[in-house]
Amino acid sequence: MDLISGFGQSINVAQEHAGLVVPITVFVAVLCLCLVVGHLLEESRWVNESITAILIGGISGICILVLSKGKSSHILRFNEELFFIYLLPPIIFNAGFQVKKKQFFQNFVTIVLFGVVGVFISTFIITAGSMWAFPKLGFLGLTVRDYLAVGTIFSSTDTVCTLQVLHQDETPVLYSLVFGEGVVNDATSVVLFNAIQKMDGTKPDMHRGLLVIGDFLYLFSTSTGLGVLVGLVTAYVLKALHFGRHSSIRELSIMVLMAYLSYALAELLELSGILTVFFCGILMSHYAWYNVTESSKITTRHVFAMMSFIAETFIFLYVGMDALDIEKWKMNKMSFQTSMGIYSLLVFLILIGRAAFVFPLSAASNLMNKQRTRPLTLKRQIIIWWAGLIRGAVSIALAFKQFTYSGVTWDPVYATMITNTIIVVLFTTLVFGFLTKPLVSYLIPHTVNERTNHQEPKSPKEDASLPLLSLQESIASNVELAKSSLAMFVERPAYTIHYYWRKFDNAYMRPIFGGPLSNRSEC
Amino acid sequence: MDLISGFGQSINVAQEHAGLVVPITVFVAVLCLCLVVGHLLEESRWVNESITAILIGGISGICILVLSKGKSSHILRFNEELFFIYLLPPIIFNAGFQVKKKQFFQNFVTIVLFGVVGVFISTFIITAGSMWAFPKLGFLGLTVRDYLAVGTIFSSTDTVCTLQVLHQDETPVLYSLVFGEGVVNDATSVVLFNAIQKMDGTKPDMHRGLLVIGDFLYLFSTSTGLGVLVGLVTAYVLKALHFGRHSSIRELSIMVLMAYLSYALAELLELSGILTVFFCGILMSHYAWYNVTESSKITTRHVFAMMSFIAETFIFLYVGMDALDIEKWKMNKMSFQTSMGIYSLLVFLILIGRAAFVFPLSAASNLMNKQRTRPLTLKRQIIIWWAGLIRGAVSIALAFKQFTYSGVTWDPVYATMITNTIIVVLFTTLVFGFLTKPLVSYLIPHTVNERTNHQEPKSPKEDASLPLLSLQESIASNVELAKSSLAMFVERPAYTIHYYWRKFDNAYMRPIFGGPLSNRSEC
Repeated sequence: MDLISGFGQSINVAQEHAGLVVPITVFVAVLCLCLVVGHLLEESRWVNESITAILIGGISGICILVLSKGKSSHILRFNEELFFIYLLPPIIFNAGFQVKKKQFFQNFVTIVLFGVVGVFISTFIITAGSMWAFPKLGFLGLTVRDYLAVGTIFSSTDTVCTLQVLHQDETPVLYSLVFGEGVVNDATSVVLFNAIQKMDGTKPDMHRGLLVIGDFLYLFSTSTGLGVLVGLVTAYVLKALHFGRHSSIRELSIMVLMAYLSYALAELLELSGILTVFFCGILMSHYAWYNVTESSKITTRHVFAMMSFIAETFIFLYVGMDALDIEKWKMNKMSFQTSMGIYSLLVFLILIGRAAFVFPLSAASNLMNKQRTRPLTLKRQIIIWWAGLIRGAVSIALAFKQFTYSGVTWDPVYATMITNTIIVVLFTTLVFGFLTKPLVSYLIPHTVNERTNHQEPKSPKEDASLPLLSLQESIASNVELAKSSLAMFVERPAYTIHYYWRKFDNAYMRPIFGGPLSNRSEC
Repeated sequence: MDLISGFGQSINVAQEHAGLVVPITVFVAVLCLCLVVGHLLEESRWVNESITAILIGGISGICILVLSKGKSSHILRFNEELFFIYLLPPIIFNAGFQVKKKQFFQNFVTIVLFGVVGVFISTFIITAGSMWAFPKLGFLGLTVRDYLAVGTIFSSTDTVCTLQVLHQDETPVLYSLVFGEGVVNDATSVVLFNAIQKMDGTKPDMHRGLLVIGDFLYLFSTSTGLGVLVGLVTAYVLKALHFGRHSSIRELSIMVLMAYLSYALAELLELSGILTVFFCGILMSHYAWYNVTESSKITTRHVFAMMSFIAETFIFLYVGMDALDIEKWKMNKMSFQTSMGIYSLLVFLILIGRAAFVFPLSAASNLMNKQRTRPLTLKRQIIIWWAGLIRGAVSIALAFKQFTYSGVTWDPVYATMITNTIIVVLFTTLVFGFLTKPLVSYLIPHTVNERTNHQEPKSPKEDASLPLLSLQESIASNVELAKSSLAMFVERPAYTIHYYWRKFDNAYMRPIFGGPLSNRSEC
């Protein structure tokens, strides 16, 4: 049956597709409720949108459980592709579109350290820890590959919750680090997970490890390249054809469709759609956005944010609703003590797995960035550590991919791993998420002062003077050279590349792809 | 499998769901192409967006046919609900949201005459004509119910094409008539079609006819009521809770979700979702729109238009692609002559079926609106007649519902009816659509002059002075009373209701649901 047949079959939707209309109606209604409740709780110190959505999802789940007399707690049986084809792209694209590019690229080295090296370290620790402790707790039956999968599953962070607390204007460096890591981390986890799934059952060796890393580097570069390409094509088309001349609707549509096309193309070419759509978002806000009419500029900013917001709320709502799925609970054969032991172990491994890379890598980053006005203090390191403790939709998605076949599993061990994942996601989101606001306001209490004092390099003026500084400081930096050659090697190139890039951008890219020529245009 | 399982299953989309990623990529790419080509052809006198999309769809179909070595011409196999659950609601909601309400309600009686009475007349003529002529052409095998279905299938108009040519600011009365009729007509056709499907095979009698009309009136009023209710609730929530205070994203999301909720609720309650979402759109633009922040006002206007635009282009693209579906053509057993005879007959019946109500009802409308500054001249009647000749997605949807089971049919007679419908849709869209621009510019060449001369009652000032006029003219109208009591009965109430409604709106509705109190706010 094709589209047109679809037209016909669903006219009297209410009669024939009550099974679809009922859940859509309930879900949209509950989403509206989430928005209203989230708005009313905006001033609250303790909760945020994600927690609200999970709790409302849980309450809806209970209502449905009671109404269906214990048969089911979720009402929506989705197609498999829902999350990765429809919900994730708008979230990631919006992330790229709204990111403050200057901050992101100035901290690019640190972000990649956290997002790539960090995932490898965290995966190693969680894999080793669970391999050692699971059998001791009486939980047997997982292969080496399963343990490696567990490592990646619990290494993918969900920073949505934290980003609702941090503010881009108040703590720009911290925000860009947490945010940037979140995106790179997502991509790394998914790519690493896929590489592990491709392994055969044998024990991993050095050669295999290098292959995984090579595979990762290939995916990272090609995915980024594709995103950049699609972004540039969009900018060029909008600029060359003067789309806004006739209607701003058409230029809006082109931007939305090209953004989605970048993701679809990446998936088609077996690249990482997450990275592609993220870089496409960055390129679109850097060039294409300047080629549209004034009203389209306002509209794009808001419409991408709205789509991302609805997708996020939807995911949390569903996670809350799914937590009560009794089918999965029935299959869990373990005792209460064993279960609690495993949950505690996993949360503990997440805590130390993240600590094991945040603090050393922060120290390395401080070493490399000695001339930075504000180093990553211990307080800031704690926030970065805390910000990535929450596990979310990606973890659940990966767990289902590893331990079920089309969402169904008859293996009690695998079913237990699914419930473990859901419990860890709920626990980290609710408890860690709950404590984020108080923690952040305890550790950085004067965020507003910070903002007015301009202590962080956030104003465009500082950015504009950057090339000048880098010339004046060249003598001083020669003296420093002996002291920290590693830091120079990593840090100077970052600034120099940034400087030459801006020159190149102004001379060649901006005239072709659009946007103002001033240095101030970048943040 | 539920949502979460879906998360997991589709991570490596490219490997497991190449069957879905390929068509989505191709479709989005072709949609982008349509937008670019549509933009380049904007100045053209002959083509418009719909025709461009159909032609590009046809060309894509040929490419796919060649690439797949004659196996298939369409790449996307959709779920049944695609059209009625995802594509139609944004189109109709946007229609309601952007309509100029003053024009729409001042012409409400005429619109309902065309949209409701017209469909009944047209259905009767097409049913009778095909019942009489089909057997003479050698096309046998349809029951009475099938013939009635044929009547409604070919009575649903597609005014998208025409509305791209007419301009709301230049010819407001004509635009609101064509536009309003289009919406009411869609709803009427679907409701009438459903009523006919419920009939048993026996011959229709007077009693049954009255039942159908009663059913129709019930659906019309309840669907409208539901749309109004959801629109008012949205406006009240936005006003009472000051959503814009915290973020404009949340108020945007609420508007989009509530709009969709109105449609879903209507389908759930077995009402007409089309009517509900249309009136919800009107109410939202009348009240809710005034309760949001300035940037949300701009964003909503554009985002609803964009969603509608993409959905429309998508439908036309698909119709073009589906026209080459060789499966359906193979089953058509009729000779070329017979086929051509049937196509010509159907197009002829559409022409006279529409003429049979447009000209008499226009005359009736002129009679009722003697004091109207600008009556429906013959030229304008011809445009109205022409505007509704094009058949589109709704016709195809209804045909598939009647003549296939989940898009598949093994009955050669039914397969022939499907190809007949596709041919008529293509012919009317391409040929009639092609001639619309030249016809309109031939019949009303000085649309811009009209606009500057303010001959049509379009400025808010005229509207504001309306209650005054109705008092002064009361003596004159008493004289007229004897001459045309029918006209008075229909016309005066319309104006009086409009007047009292505005008083009521300013006194009670606006303060509760939002919006400026001035009389000028309505258009």
